[in-house]
Amino acid sequence: MSEHADSLIHARWIVPVEPRGQVLEGHALAIRDGQILAIAPSGDLRTRFTSAREFNLTDHVVIPGLINLHSHAAMTLMRGLADDLPLMTWLRDHIWPAEGKHVSHEFVFDGVRLACAEMLLGGVTLMNDMYFFPEAAARAVLDAGMRASLGISVLEFPSAYAADADDYLHKGLQTRDEFKGEPLLTFTIAPHAPYTVTDRTFGKVLTLSEQLECAIHIHLHETTDEIDHSLKDHGLRPIARLQNLGLLGPNLIAVHAVHMTDAEIAELARHGCHVAHCPASNLKLASGFAPIARFVDQGINVGIGTDGAASNNRLDVLGEMRLAALLAKGVAGRADAVPAYQALEMATINGARALSMGDRIGSLMPGKAADITAINLGALGSTPCFDVTSHIVYATSREQVSHVWVNGELKVNEGHLMAFDTVDLAAKAHYWQNKIGNAS
Amino acid sequence: MSEHADSLIHARWIVPVEPRGQVLEGHALAIRDGQILAIAPSGDLRTRFTSAREFNLTDHVVIPGLINLHSHAAMTLMRGLADDLPLMTWLRDHIWPAEGKHVSHEFVFDGVRLACAEMLLGGVTLMNDMYFFPEAAARAVLDAGMRASLGISVLEFPSAYAADADDYLHKGLQTRDEFKGEPLLTFTIAPHAPYTVTDRTFGKVLTLSEQLECAIHIHLHETTDEIDHSLKDHGLRPIARLQNLGLLGPNLIAVHAVHMTDAEIAELARHGCHVAHCPASNLKLASGFAPIARFVDQGINVGIGTDGAASNNRLDVLGEMRLAALLAKGVAGRADAVPAYQALEMATINGARALSMGDRIGSLMPGKAADITAINLGALGSTPCFDVTSHIVYATSREQVSHVWVNGELKVNEGHLMAFDTVDLAAKAHYWQNKIGNAS
Repeated sequence: MSEHADSLIHARWIVPVEPRGQVLEGHALAIRDGQILAIAPSGDLRTRFTSAREFNLTDHVVIPGLINLHSHAAMTLMRGLADDLPLMTWLRDHIWPAEGKHVSHEFVFDGVRLACAEMLLGGVTLMNDMYFFPEAAARAVLDAGMRASLGISVLEFPSAYAADADDYLHKGLQTRDEFKGEPLLTFTIAPHAPYTVTDRTFGKVLTLSEQLECAIHIHLHETTDEIDHSLKDHGLRPIARLQNLGLLGPNLIAVHAVHMTDAEIAELARHGCHVAHCPASNLKLASGFAPIARFVDQGINVGIGTDGAASNNRLDVLGEMRLAALLAKGVAGRADAVPAYQALEMATINGARALSMGDRIGSLMPGKAADITAINLGALGSTPCFDVTSHIVYATSREQVSHVWVNGELKVNEGHLMAFDTVDLAAKAHYWQNKIGNAS
Repeated sequence: MSEHADSLIHARWIVPVEPRGQVLEGHALAIRDGQILAIAPSGDLRTRFTSAREFNLTDHVVIPGLINLHSHAAMTLMRGLADDLPLMTWLRDHIWPAEGKHVSHEFVFDGVRLACAEMLLGGVTLMNDMYFFPEAAARAVLDAGMRASLGISVLEFPSAYAADADDYLHKGLQTRDEFKGEPLLTFTIAPHAPYTVTDRTFGKVLTLSEQLECAIHIHLHETTDEIDHSLKDHGLRPIARLQNLGLLGPNLIAVHAVHMTDAEIAELARHGCHVAHCPASNLKLASGFAPIARFVDQGINVGIGTDGAASNNRLDVLGEMRLAALLAKGVAGRADAVPAYQALEMATINGARALSMGDRIGSLMPGKAADITAINLGALGSTPCFDVTSHIVYATSREQVSHVWVNGELKVNEGHLMAFDTVDLAAKAHYWQNKIGNAS
């Protein structure tokens, strides 16, 4: 009597990420109803299961879906709008004016759809997003069939989306309620940054995070300006201020964490905070070098984010993982800092843990959701191959991603997006390009 | 009466690199007998020329072929053999033993062919290579139809290739004579590094460089170890030693140049020396951060190299250009350091100038050789597009390279290698993978 599976995925290699360092050869995954049922030698699974569909990925490595731990997906519509500029010039003279003119429900829906398409094609199955109009983002994400953790953004300043901090929270919580039953969506409370949020609002953020069991997603210690500003206004560096306010804890995802004293690293570690490392954005805006190897040594859980396309300009978690592994070595002065397996953990299970989803996604294990990415290592640029994990991190392009499943649904097949009208996507992008380009 | 052209290449955009910053829309290139005849609006060229073949690259940008200013192409067969290790452990325990066992004429021929295939697919039309058995490299390069500058390698230590410094020079010069008539090949004198070459041999290198009008291609100031070693053995830092020996000059290509005092930067600038910047390799081996913005400020000509696939692990000049632009900003602490147009110059005209070929290649101008790369910007990851040069540098994957011409010959068509037996290439790579993998 054989069991039923929706799909059997046979692969040359499987790197399940848990257990650490394991590389399986000639194995397969059985999936059903969005879950991984089993991982075992291909022959065993062929005997055990009858399956509606079989994938024979003969040159491929299968890994957990990649997790983008920090994005502003809608900003994909501003990709390359203004480069090679200092952070505050970039924000004040280009990004904020463009946002002021253009950001709307429609902008966010179109931008997030484009971002989801780009990310899915690159093997990303979950993004942890922060932006305006999260209900538009929610609709776009569901349309794309991608997993997302959407920020209930909070800042003190008015925008086309909300009037003040209470209004942001109110609208964001309404969106959370509206989409509560959706299995692909979760929410975080996302205070924008220490310099845009008051102590009073941080108090509300803490209460909501505790009551609703949400992660707190915040830009933190990104630039020296931010720290100087905080010292001037509060007499404290931002991390010390958040500590006083009670915000440090296992719910906190500190994005960037570039400028960190040893004591601050120890505090984040002691409180079980997580870091979302955005290496390309930190370089492009000249923010500085996050001391990733020191975070790892202190036991801080580090995930990887792309940041928005306006400061990257790619939503390429695979490439970001390579950059994270390379940069950590340069910064630490140790070629053995952040070895390949650890970079892969950062882009998968660590992202899941930061979002308290480590028991559901982030590695390939029976019982976990079937968020799966297959990479074709048959390309000449992946030849020869002495070490599969090394190739995933150091040698692979995102264009080698061949298949992507989210919650058991096939979203990318042989490098092509399923169930996406890419002509319409491109047309929408051109519409916004003309609108934004002509206005700026 | 219309003139004859071999091909007309119509492109949405052309970025000729010279003049600086120019972006042409709706233009075309006419090429004949390996040369660029004209660049002008498409309609004008259609009237002026009858052409055997027309390319209508409606979503594409056309740029000069990319130049890899530092490679060890044959080492592609050791891609990912040993990662995440300090430089000397990596060399002594892994790379040198593997080279000792395996490097041969056959190894170099197969490795260079694989490297050429990877580089051509990624839009690279010229590599400046340094390795053993340059005659095998020459045959492989001609087989691939790529342009190369091959190092006449010199070091004091015996290898499967040569017994001592004089033997390296003798064999290398024989190879140079053998291939003298080949339009795609030039040669450099390539003393390996200050710590592997004596003063006496450097004297010969200088003489040959002057008499044969060859560039000198050398690893220089890559690590602090190299500098400490030189201080101990010669009482001088390597650049000071080379200066005393008379080697600093416009023929010198200093590879890496990571650890540099202000005075040393000024000396390189004063002598018109060139730098081959290898950002990924410098990070991966934790060598340090080359001060690229300071080089540029001092007027030093900086090109970009991938180094070998054993320390990168990609031969991806497009990706390396992005990393160079990003890293320069982080290191300089200025988001306006190495803007996109400058990074593109580094990967094209600057590489040509370093090899004294700036009058023949490196930009798209009538009279120059038709070394041309077309990139498809129709991908979702290149959408929207506000600035073409920004997209080339910050948003493009090498897989978007669609067409490549070397000396007017079409080598990549619609993303496929022409005249390459890729099945045989992959088979050869697997042969070496098994041989090297089993031995190590």
